[in-house]
Amino acid sequence: MTHIQSLSHLHGIIPPVVTPLTPEYGVDEASLRRVIQHLLSGGVHGLFLLGSTSEVVFMNRETRREVLRIALDEVAGRVPVLAGVIDPATDRVIEHAQDALAAGADGLVVTAPFYTRTSQAEIIEHFRAVRQAVPLPIMAYDIPVCVQVKLERTTLRQMRREGLIEGLKDSSGDDTNFRLLAQECQDDAEFRLFTGSELMVDTALMIGAHGCVPGLGNVDPAAYVALYDAARREDWRSARQIQERLIRLFAVALQGTPRTSAGASGVGGFKTALKVMGLITHHHMNRPNLPLNSEETGRVAVILKAEGV
Amino acid sequence: MTHIQSLSHLHGIIPPVVTPLTPEYGVDEASLRRVIQHLLSGGVHGLFLLGSTSEVVFMNRETRREVLRIALDEVAGRVPVLAGVIDPATDRVIEHAQDALAAGADGLVVTAPFYTRTSQAEIIEHFRAVRQAVPLPIMAYDIPVCVQVKLERTTLRQMRREGLIEGLKDSSGDDTNFRLLAQECQDDAEFRLFTGSELMVDTALMIGAHGCVPGLGNVDPAAYVALYDAARREDWRSARQIQERLIRLFAVALQGTPRTSAGASGVGGFKTALKVMGLITHHHMNRPNLPLNSEETGRVAVILKAEGV
Amino acid sequence: MTHIQSLSHLHGIIPPVVTPLTPEYGVDEASLRRVIQHLLSGGVHGLFLLGSTSEVVFMNRETRREVLRIALDEVAGRVPVLAGVIDPATDRVIEHAQDALAAGADGLVVTAPFYTRTSQAEIIEHFRAVRQAVPLPIMAYDIPVCVQVKLERTTLRQMRREGLIEGLKDSSGDDTNFRLLAQECQDDAEFRLFTGSELMVDTALMIGAHGCVPGLGNVDPAAYVALYDAARREDWRSARQIQERLIRLFAVALQGTPRTSAGASGVGGFKTALKVMGLITHHHMNRPNLPLNSEETGRVAVILKAEGV
Amino acid sequence: MTHIQSLSHLHGIIPPVVTPLTPEYGVDEASLRRVIQHLLSGGVHGLFLLGSTSEVVFMNRETRREVLRIALDEVAGRVPVLAGVIDPATDRVIEHAQDALAAGADGLVVTAPFYTRTSQAEIIEHFRAVRQAVPLPIMAYDIPVCVQVKLERTTLRQMRREGLIEGLKDSSGDDTNFRLLAQECQDDAEFRLFTGSELMVDTALMIGAHGCVPGLGNVDPAAYVALYDAARREDWRSARQIQERLIRLFAVALQGTPRTSAGASGVGGFKTALKVMGLITHHHMNRPNLPLNSEETGRVAVILKAEGV
Repeated sequence: MTHIQSLSHLHGIIPPVVTPLTPEYGVDEASLRRVIQHLLSGGVHGLFLLGSTSEVVFMNRETRREVLRIALDEVAGRVPVLAGVIDPATDRVIEHAQDALAAGADGLVVTAPFYTRTSQAEIIEHFRAVRQAVPLPIMAYDIPVCVQVKLERTTLRQMRREGLIEGLKDSSGDDTNFRLLAQECQDDAEFRLFTGSELMVDTALMIGAHGCVPGLGNVDPAAYVALYDAARREDWRSARQIQERLIRLFAVALQGTPRTSAGASGVGGFKTALKVMGLITHHHMNRPNLPLNSEETGRVAVILKAEGV
Repeated sequence: MTHIQSLSHLHGIIPPVVTPLTPEYGVDEASLRRVIQHLLSGGVHGLFLLGSTSEVVFMNRETRREVLRIALDEVAGRVPVLAGVIDPATDRVIEHAQDALAAGADGLVVTAPFYTRTSQAEIIEHFRAVRQAVPLPIMAYDIPVCVQVKLERTTLRQMRREGLIEGLKDSSGDDTNFRLLAQECQDDAEFRLFTGSELMVDTALMIGAHGCVPGLGNVDPAAYVALYDAARREDWRSARQIQERLIRLFAVALQGTPRTSAGASGVGGFKTALKVMGLITHHHMNRPNLPLNSEETGRVAVILKAEGV
Repeated sequence: MTHIQSLSHLHGIIPPVVTPLTPEYGVDEASLRRVIQHLLSGGVHGLFLLGSTSEVVFMNRETRREVLRIALDEVAGRVPVLAGVIDPATDRVIEHAQDALAAGADGLVVTAPFYTRTSQAEIIEHFRAVRQAVPLPIMAYDIPVCVQVKLERTTLRQMRREGLIEGLKDSSGDDTNFRLLAQECQDDAEFRLFTGSELMVDTALMIGAHGCVPGLGNVDPAAYVALYDAARREDWRSARQIQERLIRLFAVALQGTPRTSAGASGVGGFKTALKVMGLITHHHMNRPNLPLNSEETGRVAVILKAEGV
Repeated sequence: MTHIQSLSHLHGIIPPVVTPLTPEYGVDEASLRRVIQHLLSGGVHGLFLLGSTSEVVFMNRETRREVLRIALDEVAGRVPVLAGVIDPATDRVIEHAQDALAAGADGLVVTAPFYTRTSQAEIIEHFRAVRQAVPLPIMAYDIPVCVQVKLERTTLRQMRREGLIEGLKDSSGDDTNFRLLAQECQDDAEFRLFTGSELMVDTALMIGAHGCVPGLGNVDPAAYVALYDAARREDWRSARQIQERLIRLFAVALQGTPRTSAGASGVGGFKTALKVMGLITHHHMNRPNLPLNSEETGRVAVILKAEGV
């Protein structure tokens, strides 16, 4: 196995890029390229393709490869690109990881297995198998709301000790646990901690996070970058002010419920905002997610205007 | 769209067939054929391939096609064959459904989407899309432990009204709700109700189920068939006696925990029993599930002997 | 400590008696006496006072004593009377148990502690303390929906071995687990198993329950008694027919939601039915439960009429 | 009704005071007085008696009155005293509230009802009834881990609008939701927000909390006060440093599990620390909570020494 690079260069704002679709549910390449340019112009420090926000589990292997091909071509090495390799079990994850390696991704984002319920010992086995199969750095992705199991602190500790993972993306919403992790990892300069709690970025950075993976970063990447910069210079008043505006802007993600699922309201809200902003052509998600209707779209437009986007 | 056949001929014991593996995690064709012969010899009324017990979510599209090819060839039309088409979202499910149609399956078994959280309205949208895409009868599969959402009674009612589903496999463990469903469907001769509560088959049949999908049926299909026959002649004392023996036999599924997950203990226990019985060559599951160790395997052998298998 | 009587004489239908209230939230003695006469006339085999259906946790010590005084006086020894002693922790439970002993109850019904989260070892400690303090037989009450913890099978096994409990009331809704318990206790003639799954009484009796504690038994005790009698003579067709009518009648418990909580809809529905039947004067529950409004009351009356009550 | 005072003077560190016990499970008055002196010497800004940490639900009405009598006497008006009035339902809560008023408490802390499951509308009804019955300011206590229901943001908004509550103690662990609340309440100078997330006090204060209710404050009140002071002068580096030491010290609360419940480990750990520090005579909790054993006590002593307590 070739040498696994660390992720120790990773930091800052790494949005999970949405996947614009054609009416036939194919990848809308032109729109995806515009979104990526929008993010790079906003100053983001990396991109996360094929995450939950990308609707990754809706895509088969071919579509995922296409997304990576377009994204890596458009980024052209300007920032690191992480690729989610999310599917229910080990060997299917390894297939996606091999595709990500072939496409030129800089790192993998790996969840626990799902559908089947898995023990913490089996989760470690899963990461061992991916590590052994594909020489790319791995960010563990803790997202119990989707996979029904938490990556426990003892599990992460064991995986760090074995050298199975180089970082963590924490979308568990358990900020206290995230802090305990950050405190535990303080002496490990190589291990990278990213939060998915996009409404708590200032506090996450204050307690030791290296960055954030904000879905709302698709809509206003520059604001998240400004928040990160304020935090780096320990200007917490400014950081909080920016975060509070982003909380107001996050209302774009809440207009679909309860008519739609929270997921369809959230990712669908980001897509709707990007359409209102003229960046993507269609705002629908993959089936069976219900798209925002015209009334909900109108509310998204009002929120964007109110926050100056 | 061609005419969708009903499932109204389905009844009785329809085991979810395990998938024996080679050491390289490929399908062990000879072992799979032996398991199917064992089930047919036991008198089962149908087979369910590519269900949770088949480790379906661990398999990519090619492996799933291979399983169906082998199974349908081995069955040779003697009993109906249902094919699970289980993956996180609609279009991937439709791909599997098209494969099942091409392979010659008699019906589909469809869960709610998973990983992403989906509303009941979006679940109905999901079934609508599968129905429209593939002309095969559909059995809805209620398995909240895996997909995190219940197929609510109102949802099932709506789907029955729209003609989107022809039956239900209930693996929710909520037997009271199952009974309310059965009572609600009493006048609908076409709609088929199967329980996955394999330790409650006598009572399920008493309250209106048309059959059962027992994982333990891989190990002792004839006993489940005898239980079904006793229930059909309303000989509840015999039915209960057989069920109580099967409960004791079910201990083969409980030997791995807490070292393994419950799933690895259960399906792994069935596989281990089949290996002890000389029907399959290897007892391991797909990665990352931990296989039963030699001590646990010894306990499985003791249980089999005690129950005369 | 005096000798603890067994509960081995307990069987059949033991309704959890509602507590009719005055407008000032006191016990409406005349109405309570009428309800008890109605139950005894229906042929019930025992009464359970101060259970969840009695709104026990809404009452202080004095009110509970008053309920027991009235009930024991009205019953006058004709059937056994169980007293719930339900409060968050051990010493308060013991106070209620002493009151129940003084009042003349025949047995106690004891839940796990609640509010505070308690380990299975601490739950056993709790039952040990109650056992030691008060010489009355104890029925363990498994009701995780209220106390957030299940009485695990290993816990119940340990408590049976130590002689801490004489029976179980299972309101967990986990009918498979109840069956495994029943099978485990088959050789223990003294241990009594009652189900709270009042829509599954025929099947519960078929698999080994000694009786049921049905809230709906307040409304139609004679039907539950007839169901029990049918089950005793193994006339399962009749048992099922009676159960299916009771399922239709159970709709009286579902008219308040989602305006009210399920609890207020259920116990409030029983009370409303009893008021419509002329047995109690007021149908409201203790605060803060919302009472059924006039439209919901109208629907309850329609259901009663449809089922001939 | 007399005028309800606001809680607008409340701020800072308000520990939930433990209740030291005698061997016979009575209140150990001398020890309780020493704990209170220890807290006042540490500079705390208020005291919360009869909270979860006080083992309130284990105590009957008389014992609760005794705790309040001792505490209010010992405090002698030097800081505000809040009294928890925690029991399953409205009228019992009102009884405790009347006792708290009679004892001279400065405010009430009120949870949602528990044991019975209650709708958000019924929760509002509950607070309305308490408000109407007792003229003391009310802090709503959001503790879903104990009462199984969250005080939703819409519920809190409605209760603020109606003037039913003057503040919130948030022990839900959902820090994102707490932040959204804080942002929503920014213009309401009267409404007081306290966090129970005692390992996240610096960040909670940064995003708008007025103070914290830390169980660990029993052990090291001065450190929490120093943390609060650092936050007030926006010295976040110092605040974080103090918080990180307190996280290490919090290990005293984790030594009992999994032998004991988490609750017994936590409150039992605080009590054990106080005993090691010579402040209280006995470290056991009320029944059925298991006390820390000598090995666990030894570990607590080591932790205290390591952190200089």
